Amino acid sequence: MKLLDSIHSPEDLRKLPEEKLIALSGELREFIIDIVSAKEGHLGASLGVVELTIALHYIFNTPHDRLIWDVGHQAYGHKILTGRRTRFNTNRQFGGISGFPKREESEYDAFGTGHSSTSISAMIGMALAARLKGDNEREHIAVIGDASIASGMAFEGLNHGGVLDANLLIILNDNAIGIDPSVGALKRYLTNVKKGTAKEENIFECLNFNYSGPVDGHDLPAVMEALRRMKQIKGPRLLHLITTKGKGLKQAEENQIVYHAPGRFDRKTGELTPSPSSDQPPKYQDVFGLTLVELAEINDRIVGITPAMPTGSSLKYMMEAFPNRAFDVGIAEQHAVTMSAGMAAEGLIPFCAIYSTFLQRAYDQVIHDVALQDLPVIFCIDRAGLVGQDGATHHGAYDLAYLRCIPNMIIFTPMNETELRNMLFTVQQGVDHPVAIRYPRGRGVISGWRTPFETIPVASSRELVKGTSIALLSLGHIGNQATKAIRALGNPKEIGHYDMRFAKPLDEIRLHEVFSRYDLIVTLEDGSISGGFGSAVLEFANSNGYRQKVTCLGIPDRFIEQGTIEELQDDAGISEEAITRCLIQLLHEVR
Amino acid sequence: MKLLDSIHSPEDLRKLPEEKLIALSGELREFIIDIVSAKEGHLGASLGVVELTIALHYIFNTPHDRLIWDVGHQAYGHKILTGRRTRFNTNRQFGGISGFPKREESEYDAFGTGHSSTSISAMIGMALAARLKGDNEREHIAVIGDASIASGMAFEGLNHGGVLDANLLIILNDNAIGIDPSVGALKRYLTNVKKGTAKEENIFECLNFNYSGPVDGHDLPAVMEALRRMKQIKGPRLLHLITTKGKGLKQAEENQIVYHAPGRFDRKTGELTPSPSSDQPPKYQDVFGLTLVELAEINDRIVGITPAMPTGSSLKYMMEAFPNRAFDVGIAEQHAVTMSAGMAAEGLIPFCAIYSTFLQRAYDQVIHDVALQDLPVIFCIDRAGLVGQDGATHHGAYDLAYLRCIPNMIIFTPMNETELRNMLFTVQQGVDHPVAIRYPRGRGVISGWRTPFETIPVASSRELVKGTSIALLSLGHIGNQATKAIRALGNPKEIGHYDMRFAKPLDEIRLHEVFSRYDLIVTLEDGSISGGFGSAVLEFANSNGYRQKVTCLGIPDRFIEQGTIEELQDDAGISEEAITRCLIQLLHEVR
Repeated sequence: MKLLDSIHSPEDLRKLPEEKLIALSGELREFIIDIVSAKEGHLGASLGVVELTIALHYIFNTPHDRLIWDVGHQAYGHKILTGRRTRFNTNRQFGGISGFPKREESEYDAFGTGHSSTSISAMIGMALAARLKGDNEREHIAVIGDASIASGMAFEGLNHGGVLDANLLIILNDNAIGIDPSVGALKRYLTNVKKGTAKEENIFECLNFNYSGPVDGHDLPAVMEALRRMKQIKGPRLLHLITTKGKGLKQAEENQIVYHAPGRFDRKTGELTPSPSSDQPPKYQDVFGLTLVELAEINDRIVGITPAMPTGSSLKYMMEAFPNRAFDVGIAEQHAVTMSAGMAAEGLIPFCAIYSTFLQRAYDQVIHDVALQDLPVIFCIDRAGLVGQDGATHHGAYDLAYLRCIPNMIIFTPMNETELRNMLFTVQQGVDHPVAIRYPRGRGVISGWRTPFETIPVASSRELVKGTSIALLSLGHIGNQATKAIRALGNPKEIGHYDMRFAKPLDEIRLHEVFSRYDLIVTLEDGSISGGFGSAVLEFANSNGYRQKVTCLGIPDRFIEQGTIEELQDDAGISEEAITRCLIQLLHEVR
Repeated sequence: MKLLDSIHSPEDLRKLPEEKLIALSGELREFIIDIVSAKEGHLGASLGVVELTIALHYIFNTPHDRLIWDVGHQAYGHKILTGRRTRFNTNRQFGGISGFPKREESEYDAFGTGHSSTSISAMIGMALAARLKGDNEREHIAVIGDASIASGMAFEGLNHGGVLDANLLIILNDNAIGIDPSVGALKRYLTNVKKGTAKEENIFECLNFNYSGPVDGHDLPAVMEALRRMKQIKGPRLLHLITTKGKGLKQAEENQIVYHAPGRFDRKTGELTPSPSSDQPPKYQDVFGLTLVELAEINDRIVGITPAMPTGSSLKYMMEAFPNRAFDVGIAEQHAVTMSAGMAAEGLIPFCAIYSTFLQRAYDQVIHDVALQDLPVIFCIDRAGLVGQDGATHHGAYDLAYLRCIPNMIIFTPMNETELRNMLFTVQQGVDHPVAIRYPRGRGVISGWRTPFETIPVASSRELVKGTSIALLSLGHIGNQATKAIRALGNPKEIGHYDMRFAKPLDEIRLHEVFSRYDLIVTLEDGSISGGFGSAVLEFANSNGYRQKVTCLGIPDRFIEQGTIEELQDDAGISEEAITRCLIQLLHEVR
């Protein structure tokens, strides 16, 4: 019997003799590799904190002591040791356990995470609560990476935490990489610290944290000793651990970017499992990244900006082709947006690639620094709509609603690769306003997408099918589900289908035609129904005296969990099947 | 003739012999005091940078060299020296010049500011643009206060800027105060630097900035010398100036919080001009602050949080009464919200007081850390709607739209002090969801507001007047303008008026009654029409098959400038007069 099989909670872990923990760490690492190789998920980050995870639960009294995993995708070992080992094979699946810590799931998940750099603030809130309750003993621990601690929000937590008389223990998990390699002055500084070339006072000591380290995070006895030492001290402390992302799997250590979330791989060799077919349509990300390089070749005013997602967003292509004109600024969405505004003020055309869910981090900068000054920053909003297995923390459900209310914004959503490509072409010719181009995670629908460029007029739409009584107005890639649904119904003559493309400004000429011609209207979007594209159509109809019934399909007013995109679209009522059901109902009404 | 009268641009300034600059600084200070004492505005910050302003324009080649004033309310001297002296008496007035730097207004305003901590990012964008254009000489200067540089966004800029080969000059204007005194570990550290007790390596040097200082910011020759020294160096640099907010006016130096923006005062004595009447209704802020103290006395789970606005939000009352239970975390909206979430996770009831426009800074934290975990954080959203003279950067126009799309949120808007007071009472009894309570800047309508507490059921509304054919549904304080408009029309029997109170969830029972009874519906809100309360009513009507015309009154889809609240409401179409005009039109339709 393996040691791991006997551990159903940290209570069990603490009963093990200390000398068995190294063996346990090997088993835990193997278990993670076993499951992730078959079921997919985040790999490298959890492999890097195996020793730390065991040491934390062994030495501290979780869940009474509060443990928060920043970002949270490194918490697989934590989940396995805290009662979720047997369910771990449902990780990131619909109805399964979440790929991130989640309060509903376990009392050991002190705080839900998913976006980076929240852990210090949450920990401070908890520690202040303990102090108010008169508990001066309870420990509060935030495990945060070197890329995440460089984000502004983490600094705000450090700045506040440093002057508090509260039990705050930060574990800086320094592996010099986020998803892509860490960047910036703090990374450079930490490198100096590791080399012993930093000067006398440590930057964390400047902020009044009791600093300890650096310690080898894979030397379990050393980690144990360091944690025991920190436990004896009260107040704000920071333990600096040096770890290797992907530790224990050769390929993952050597290719940390790919093995961040590698998909399936061969458990024994570590080799990636090839995709089933190579003639699939391209990813929207690659269409964005490769087209931007093409355009940058002909327009030297183009620059690219990403906050820590060069690989995920495919801005890496531009970084490779034009290293002086493409910038990874680290996990710094606020800075990325306002820096883009500064560039636009100087006449450059900045393409700022940010995931929809992370643009929430720069909402004020979009309003105050870009839109208010009407600066032509091009927001390439990736991972818009439902993202799949990453789940509730990562869906891009709100961007249409939160951008639509901002004056001067143009919001475009391509239905396919050609539209994305042509819109990228269009905006670099010069638009005088901020533009949001939102597209989903994953593949489009057209294999031969490298077509000659065409301009897309702002507020223009496309009539895909003309009908007699039901008009389906779709926005973006989700419109392909409508196309399939209409086809499944045998292309009934009643149904018209329009690719509306712009959530703002609306194609009002088209909408007048549609509302004049059709009896029933359906809107379809992969964003929040409240305040989104459908809501914009309702505002138009009301302002113009149209009285038709409008059926609004979109993400309902609740958080959607993890699963395949198909499962989640079905859950939200925007899958092919859900659209088909809706259309059958409406056909019944008009026939 | 005064020296100042001869200066129409920095060109003129640079023609003055250097020995006259001290005299000029005296004149500039007097001019600022002259105008602000009579016309109101921000005083202390601009008085603190008079010498710096003159030195910067004298030594650097503005506007070719880019100068960005963080927050921007300290830029009065800059405006006066850059061609706006004769218009400066229209500062912050409707149709006049803005109280903040504004690109449209002058080529010397390199980047518009208003919210804090944006200057470093904007400067970096500009410096990278210069580098791409092959200009290695142009200088880029950000003047930023010690409270603003402690905000996360500024740290993101420092982290990126420190590794850039670009001409970045940060002037740290260290006066140890924002609007309220600065807080946090960085402030403590800077105090040590000033005392000479910091250790060898400076925190800015850790981030690879060439640090220089501290220098007395009111010693003009010393400032000149320091700037000339910095000008000889390239790359990222930081000059640390020590200044006194309010410098040159005794009362302003001694009472820096009050003289941040003191209203009118006696030019000679410095004494504040008393308010015309003392029996006006109270400010919503004071109703919030004083009621919170009352409630905190009976409920020990209540805590208060403000990001750097204890005075403005009136959380200062709780900080005085319960210093252990009220927290000013500095300009750190992101941290404030997630820290509140951490507190709520531990069973406390956090009242997080943030201005509407600044909550934009914590949008992701509201979604990801609060709403997704359904934690009962109470957001007390101050300065919602149009704020008056601070203008476009500060209006709270978008909160209804950007909060309404978030699942689990309850959004309440009081029409008067009693409703605010009772809602504060209601939520501390225990609601299981996040709650936003939004109220405007300034005074309510009820003098005797300290009434016994009553519970307000979630999603309840009030029928103020029953009518026969036109229903006006108002949300919040702006409803008082509707009351006045209806009264001005002689309380016509046709018009019903409803105080809807909740933007989410809507009082659907009431809406069914209203849509069943009335022919025409009007919605009224002091927020963005796109996606706001009116849009929610349209979604309700459409979902339920109601076909009435709905007239949506609210802030239109453009940025509203500065002016009195009355002027701006008229501009937006939500003043008493605008509502009256709308109702006359509708009465014409139904009669």
